[in-house]
Amino acid sequence: MSYRAPLKDLMFAMRVNAGLDRRAGWSGHEDADLDTAQAVLEECARFNEGVIAPLNWTGDQHPARVEAGRVSTSPGFAEAYRQFAEGGWQGLQHPQAHGGQGLPKTLGSACSEILNSANLAFALCPLLSDGAIEALMVAGTPAQQAAWIPPLAAGRWTGTMNLTEPQAGSDLSLVRSRAEPQADGRYRLFGSKIFITWGEHDVAENIVHLVLARVPGAPEGVKGLSLFLVPKFLVGPDGRPGLRNDVYCASLEHKLGIHGSPTAVLQFGDGRGDPALGGTGAVGELLGTLNRGLEHMFVMMNAARYAVGVQGVAVAERALQRASAYARDRVQSRPVDGSLPGAAPLVHHPDVRRMLMTQRALTEGGRALAMAAAGAFDAAHHHPEAAARSAAQARYEFLVPLVKGWCTEVAQEVTSLGVQVHGGMGYIEETGAAQHLRDARILTIYEGTTAIQANDLIGRKTLRDGGAQARALAAEAAALAETLAARPGPAAASMARRLRAAQASFEAGVAFVLAEARARPNPVFAGSVPFLMLAGYLAAGVEMARGLIAAEDALAAGEDADFHQAKLASARFFAEHLLTRVPGLADCLLDGADSVLALAPEAL
Amino acid sequence: MSYRAPLKDLMFAMRVNAGLDRRAGWSGHEDADLDTAQAVLEECARFNEGVIAPLNWTGDQHPARVEAGRVSTSPGFAEAYRQFAEGGWQGLQHPQAHGGQGLPKTLGSACSEILNSANLAFALCPLLSDGAIEALMVAGTPAQQAAWIPPLAAGRWTGTMNLTEPQAGSDLSLVRSRAEPQADGRYRLFGSKIFITWGEHDVAENIVHLVLARVPGAPEGVKGLSLFLVPKFLVGPDGRPGLRNDVYCASLEHKLGIHGSPTAVLQFGDGRGDPALGGTGAVGELLGTLNRGLEHMFVMMNAARYAVGVQGVAVAERALQRASAYARDRVQSRPVDGSLPGAAPLVHHPDVRRMLMTQRALTEGGRALAMAAAGAFDAAHHHPEAAARSAAQARYEFLVPLVKGWCTEVAQEVTSLGVQVHGGMGYIEETGAAQHLRDARILTIYEGTTAIQANDLIGRKTLRDGGAQARALAAEAAALAETLAARPGPAAASMARRLRAAQASFEAGVAFVLAEARARPNPVFAGSVPFLMLAGYLAAGVEMARGLIAAEDALAAGEDADFHQAKLASARFFAEHLLTRVPGLADCLLDGADSVLALAPEAL
Repeated sequence: MSYRAPLKDLMFAMRVNAGLDRRAGWSGHEDADLDTAQAVLEECARFNEGVIAPLNWTGDQHPARVEAGRVSTSPGFAEAYRQFAEGGWQGLQHPQAHGGQGLPKTLGSACSEILNSANLAFALCPLLSDGAIEALMVAGTPAQQAAWIPPLAAGRWTGTMNLTEPQAGSDLSLVRSRAEPQADGRYRLFGSKIFITWGEHDVAENIVHLVLARVPGAPEGVKGLSLFLVPKFLVGPDGRPGLRNDVYCASLEHKLGIHGSPTAVLQFGDGRGDPALGGTGAVGELLGTLNRGLEHMFVMMNAARYAVGVQGVAVAERALQRASAYARDRVQSRPVDGSLPGAAPLVHHPDVRRMLMTQRALTEGGRALAMAAAGAFDAAHHHPEAAARSAAQARYEFLVPLVKGWCTEVAQEVTSLGVQVHGGMGYIEETGAAQHLRDARILTIYEGTTAIQANDLIGRKTLRDGGAQARALAAEAAALAETLAARPGPAAASMARRLRAAQASFEAGVAFVLAEARARPNPVFAGSVPFLMLAGYLAAGVEMARGLIAAEDALAAGEDADFHQAKLASARFFAEHLLTRVPGLADCLLDGADSVLALAPEAL
Repeated sequence: MSYRAPLKDLMFAMRVNAGLDRRAGWSGHEDADLDTAQAVLEECARFNEGVIAPLNWTGDQHPARVEAGRVSTSPGFAEAYRQFAEGGWQGLQHPQAHGGQGLPKTLGSACSEILNSANLAFALCPLLSDGAIEALMVAGTPAQQAAWIPPLAAGRWTGTMNLTEPQAGSDLSLVRSRAEPQADGRYRLFGSKIFITWGEHDVAENIVHLVLARVPGAPEGVKGLSLFLVPKFLVGPDGRPGLRNDVYCASLEHKLGIHGSPTAVLQFGDGRGDPALGGTGAVGELLGTLNRGLEHMFVMMNAARYAVGVQGVAVAERALQRASAYARDRVQSRPVDGSLPGAAPLVHHPDVRRMLMTQRALTEGGRALAMAAAGAFDAAHHHPEAAARSAAQARYEFLVPLVKGWCTEVAQEVTSLGVQVHGGMGYIEETGAAQHLRDARILTIYEGTTAIQANDLIGRKTLRDGGAQARALAAEAAALAETLAARPGPAAASMARRLRAAQASFEAGVAFVLAEARARPNPVFAGSVPFLMLAGYLAAGVEMARGLIAAEDALAAGEDADFHQAKLASARFFAEHLLTRVPGLADCLLDGADSVLALAPEAL
């Protein structure tokens, strides 16, 4: 089944949820109007539908392979990456000063959704390069930025994040890799890193590894970690890749999904580099301040967390498209209401309609939420007023764990429903539905598991500001519910009622978290993921409510009835089938800790 | 990670939920006391832990292969099957008159859980043989029973169900395979069947295919389907397999999971049989009455549906054991309450505890529900009083779609949580957690999708008796809630409250279904799966409530404190985290149809 980028839906979300049409006077947004966005998206759709999407199944069936440290990526990937780079797609969101196009995150995020729908495994390579660029923008010296960003933004080189070690997964305090200072101010790195996405490949001429390691005598724990930039090939005076550095791929992982993405075990300092390096150890340079590596890495991780949330939306969209096409095509059984004399396409069966509507509402809810966050990011960087900028930044930071946590959790449901809609055919790999389920399964894990997003939501995003952002979201929900209740029509009334109930549940949850988290952390953290999911449903519900209003207004104005009827339907479905999950989640948080904690850890 | 059969949990469920200790005076239960059960289970555990479980990963990594119609199963499977057959495990539940052991379904079901936990793909072969025996018991002539059941019950031959064709999946009215009557009273079969589990293999000396097909001139639709028995090798006068029949494996499917189970495309009548057959067409005999094949097949399907529900429990148990072992072993991060000075095993983190408790409560809830159904089955067949037998039969039939639908849906959640607990390691195939997720994904599809179970629950099991069985379940929940409310202690109070709320939701759902299903089928069937899930949570909750009471009583009597504390904890968790999902499900059913049906099918 071929992929078609949902351009109308993306344009709708960019307007309604990210306010792309309400940015007059913003610096750097002079060209960022709806017409430009439409043109960029059309070009993006054309490229990804034609070049990248057809390689999705190829990558799944022909994973990257490694032989003697050299990785061959899936057939077609290297040529597709070349076209990706030449098309300027890597530089979309990056500063013009470094060769990028400086477009808003709102637009970058829409393009990222398309790329990830086309091919999640492929898209991880640019995603990691984006992260490396973000880290360089924040922590790099001007010289480092000038040296490393342009080739990364041009897609000539790619970036990686090297955090995890066998004993250090979510817990980076256990990182052991070491960096020894050299006389020339550089460092030699030694150690082993695992789960390095696109850690070795053949699609670009160089790889820029950002590596967490410790210098001798550094403090224990995360406060002794520094960030190093370690290229696969050292860069010569001509700016071209030269000597092969002492970092090699020892193996690739055999994974459940994203087979087209080479996940490497990297060895630093095994003595396999070019003899002209003059000794063992991978040569690297410090990025940012000594012992503040984790802080710098967090910049990269936050960008990546947002991007992984978008991956959730993207794979959900692809799974929905596949299920919908199958359900319209496959003829099976007579409709239960007898409306057709014989067997009908699956879409005529109520439960298939329910499944497709669930997929649709969760996908659109995720897209709306991610777009709202992108809009906040853009406002934080480009709004003319300082107060608005700082409010937007706080809002963005509050939304990131929801985008990452909620959009990826619901992607599990959407891709699993995608298999279910296909019936037995869904279980056959060649159908393609199962790949989306397998691919999606990593999303709630990498860049911080859902529990880690929930800890972030509670700790840094709710407790630290005394619940200010959380209350702002609740207030917004309340205001929207009031607006909706005043409108005629059953959809608005239905949404108003469910939004109010969800808001009340959320406020009770926030109050509980604020009152208890410091004094009795276990009961609060026993409900951390239910709290995150609750907040995610509410935040996405708020954005779907905006969509409902916009769709009703468009319908009243006689604009594109089919499209806006569909928007109205998915918003109402979101209210009646998804927001209604919220009170049960609140029960888990408010009144469920005793049973989570009843058994001693050893008895579990 | 090695598998350990949960003997204590199984014994507990056999007592508390299936009443194995309350069967004095039942015919055929003279030897079915708890001591016998314990002895059989111990032997079953020993065999499956030692012989079958170690082949689970082997089968996944080395799927069955086909070459020129001959299937080679995964390494070790043939030898393990030989031991399975020699151990008498196939005949456990089958009549002693045909060489079986005639044990109660309660015990057979417990053994089936163990076998399926050990190796889901392997266990499918005996599962299908069980189904063939059941169909022969109901539809076969005495001569057919005498000829075919003993070798099946001895495990010398295996059985299959041939329903699906490329154009006929859930919709069997579209079946086209044809059976032409021969002068000798037998038939020649022609056609193509797909998705035939263990349809061809090398583990036993013959295969007994039960095949749905049409005789010339049969009515269209399901009322023109007859059931035929078509052996791979025709049976000679000596009772031994002889001439190769004209049924061949054209290919095996490349599936998401259960790789060790060969899923065959079978061609009947391609002219590849032994020349001595004297012409093309697979030779078969009619089983049961002409044109009533579907009815006979339903006997087999109902047995298989129950068994697939047990598969859900089984794979959930295996996933739970693996996650729990990893979480006790893997050290990562300091506990959020500061109770330990450094990094602690994962089980110390509240969200990991929540995930493990969710896995545990859903697995135990499924087991309790399946055991309650098995107890009803045994009562239907062996209770001394006719009225009790017929009540038990109605109860069993009501529970089957819940066992199949609910236990397999929650198995998706349990196996997915199993991956999540492992973090990044869960995504690596060698860890084994992902296999359970992949294996489990078929369970909500085969033997009737969840939507088909929901249709059965609504149509045959709720409407047909005017809601009598549904109301009986609600009354039982109400009575248990009253009992619980009268007991001291927070767990009983908590369960009482949630059981009452769930019961009220269920009653509202039943009333809605009864009032609307015939007049307005679409709105009811738009909520059919939420209704099934709601009923499943309630029915499992009722059984968990029984467990809670039994555990409290055992604790009061000073029996096995650790075990019964754990039972108490999982029952309370079930109430607070799982029964609390029920009101949201009721919302979907009672007030969610408009948004399911808002978009025209063509617009989905």
